[in-house]
Amino acid sequence: MTTFDLILVGFGNVARRFVALLAEERSVLRRGYGVTVRVVGIATRRHGQAYAAAGLRSYERSLSGSAEAGHHAPLASAQSTATRTFLRDALKRSATAARQRRLVVVETTTLDIADGQPAIGHVRAALAGGAHVITANKGPVAFAYRSLARQADRAGRRFLFEGAVMDGVPVFNLVRETLPAVTVIGFRGVVNSTTNYMLTEMERGQPFDAALADMQARGIAEADASLDIDGWDAAAKAAALANVLLDAHITPHAVDRQGITPATGRLAIDARAAGRRVKLVVSGTREGRQVKVRVALEELPADDLLAGLDGQQNAIVLRTDLLEEFAVVQRSGSVTETAYALLSDLLTITRERATRQSPPPARRRRSP
Amino acid sequence: MTTFDLILVGFGNVARRFVALLAEERSVLRRGYGVTVRVVGIATRRHGQAYAAAGLRSYERSLSGSAEAGHHAPLASAQSTATRTFLRDALKRSATAARQRRLVVVETTTLDIADGQPAIGHVRAALAGGAHVITANKGPVAFAYRSLARQADRAGRRFLFEGAVMDGVPVFNLVRETLPAVTVIGFRGVVNSTTNYMLTEMERGQPFDAALADMQARGIAEADASLDIDGWDAAAKAAALANVLLDAHITPHAVDRQGITPATGRLAIDARAAGRRVKLVVSGTREGRQVKVRVALEELPADDLLAGLDGQQNAIVLRTDLLEEFAVVQRSGSVTETAYALLSDLLTITRERATRQSPPPARRRRSP
Repeated sequence: MTTFDLILVGFGNVARRFVALLAEERSVLRRGYGVTVRVVGIATRRHGQAYAAAGLRSYERSLSGSAEAGHHAPLASAQSTATRTFLRDALKRSATAARQRRLVVVETTTLDIADGQPAIGHVRAALAGGAHVITANKGPVAFAYRSLARQADRAGRRFLFEGAVMDGVPVFNLVRETLPAVTVIGFRGVVNSTTNYMLTEMERGQPFDAALADMQARGIAEADASLDIDGWDAAAKAAALANVLLDAHITPHAVDRQGITPATGRLAIDARAAGRRVKLVVSGTREGRQVKVRVALEELPADDLLAGLDGQQNAIVLRTDLLEEFAVVQRSGSVTETAYALLSDLLTITRERATRQSPPPARRRRSP
Repeated sequence: MTTFDLILVGFGNVARRFVALLAEERSVLRRGYGVTVRVVGIATRRHGQAYAAAGLRSYERSLSGSAEAGHHAPLASAQSTATRTFLRDALKRSATAARQRRLVVVETTTLDIADGQPAIGHVRAALAGGAHVITANKGPVAFAYRSLARQADRAGRRFLFEGAVMDGVPVFNLVRETLPAVTVIGFRGVVNSTTNYMLTEMERGQPFDAALADMQARGIAEADASLDIDGWDAAAKAAALANVLLDAHITPHAVDRQGITPATGRLAIDARAAGRRVKLVVSGTREGRQVKVRVALEELPADDLLAGLDGQQNAIVLRTDLLEEFAVVQRSGSVTETAYALLSDLLTITRERATRQSPPPARRRRSP
């Protein structure tokens, strides 16, 4: 039985649900994977920080079982230093776990679309301190995938981010673990739930503002509405997909980007009347040595797989060499699904460590 | 560098394309996985058998590069003993490779819907002889999954069958490798290409016989048309899915089964006129301790994901505890895609052997 120590950087809904999930799945972790997991550090931006080498037990307990997310014990130390300073200190205090490859930093701060910081800095510090990193934040993989993957590789640690796109529905893990020797040539998809829901509602005549307010009230839309409606969230996901699957080296700012506006409602209504659908489509294709990545409003025929996605459904269609085209469709979304992405990444790490398995070989590119 | 030895039982289009694929991917195998692969044995039903401990090189060469499938050198020994006798003998001659866990039997005989034989016997003999088994035949997993998985487990060898459903598009590998701790509660899908193509054509007014003849001419339909149109192929796939994903213990004969007939054309046309689609849908659900599995003609609303599958497209929707519903959609089919299923299974084995990794823990069932 190995004990994995977690340092949580960011402690919003996703991280809290993740901690609760760890408790719910405790017996699966023990019996199936031979691991126990404890949270040794928590850093929040506004609500303090805490570290305890033996585990923040009372904290974990307050989040599991019947305790409601949000109604948890106050952090042991409300005295807040800079998160990065706290993280460096926590990594030093966990040096033994780091050396034994059983320390994991869980990064769930919110995306800053300007430059992916401070998340990228957290990932770098964590890897430098000997921790594995799992994250549900799109920033690191959208802005700095190549250098972070290289740093992780050199350190012999993992940097995993399944939750960056389509929550816990396998995309990155799918390609890495189940498609050996397959080269991805391109992708198309609908990956932003807020705009897809809004388009579905606007087709039915609901005004832009009402549709957006609805998504904000339900906690689906980003706090900063621009991230969704201006296509930034989709652009970050497209950059992440391109960087990982197409070996691109871009940031969301290099993505040819479109969003939705109140005027889009008219387009959506007219398209629907003609048996077509307007969708905000991300795509990535290799053109010679270039990778073209974009987020664009597209009017799709009814029989396009992406046209069939209503409300919050997402999908990614992968074009490959050996398997031609196939798609993964997410039919629902919830904070549990994002939290599960972190759990699946954590279990990838525990499984590899248990068997001293090296990760699958880096994907080599070939011309399509 | 480890050399894996393969014994091919069955040597039709899929096995031949697989051997060619091994040659095409030789450098990926060497550099990415540290393995070379050679074919040491081939058993066919009608065209003889061959074994050479050092590898049937001339045979492999004739299948790779520009050589057309079918135009290969005659087998070294056209003198045919019973396949099972040949296999037992070949396993004995490959005892060293078996002991070193680098012997793999590749089973690609055709499905016998009566009882899954002789494929099940081949799998048992292979595992007893210390070989891993990979197969694209639905029979073993549809008729005898539980006992074969147990035998493989006890022998410390793998029994893998990604190609049994949706060719090489990951279904079984997806659940096993990328959904740790997730429990599958049920599935729905369209998994038989011939009937789905025929329904699509019959909706447009093409007669049953013409649609079937078309699929036979294109090599998509099974040689025995009843396997497709009477729902047997779909029933075998549904049984395989239920046995593996829902821990059922059934055979295709226990599947509540429907097929398509010339009269189905009228239903399909009427449904289409009403904006709906008729599909041959497989499904599996757990009801208490029972697992209900069926193949049934269903009239679906246009916005059902399965209603959008035209022609030869397939899809499986998984219902799970932690990820709710998600789907995998196969948008095309080819012999390369089935051959790739074998390659992906082979690479799972090489990767595990290289790292002495144990397979993921057996999936425990919980009440949904």
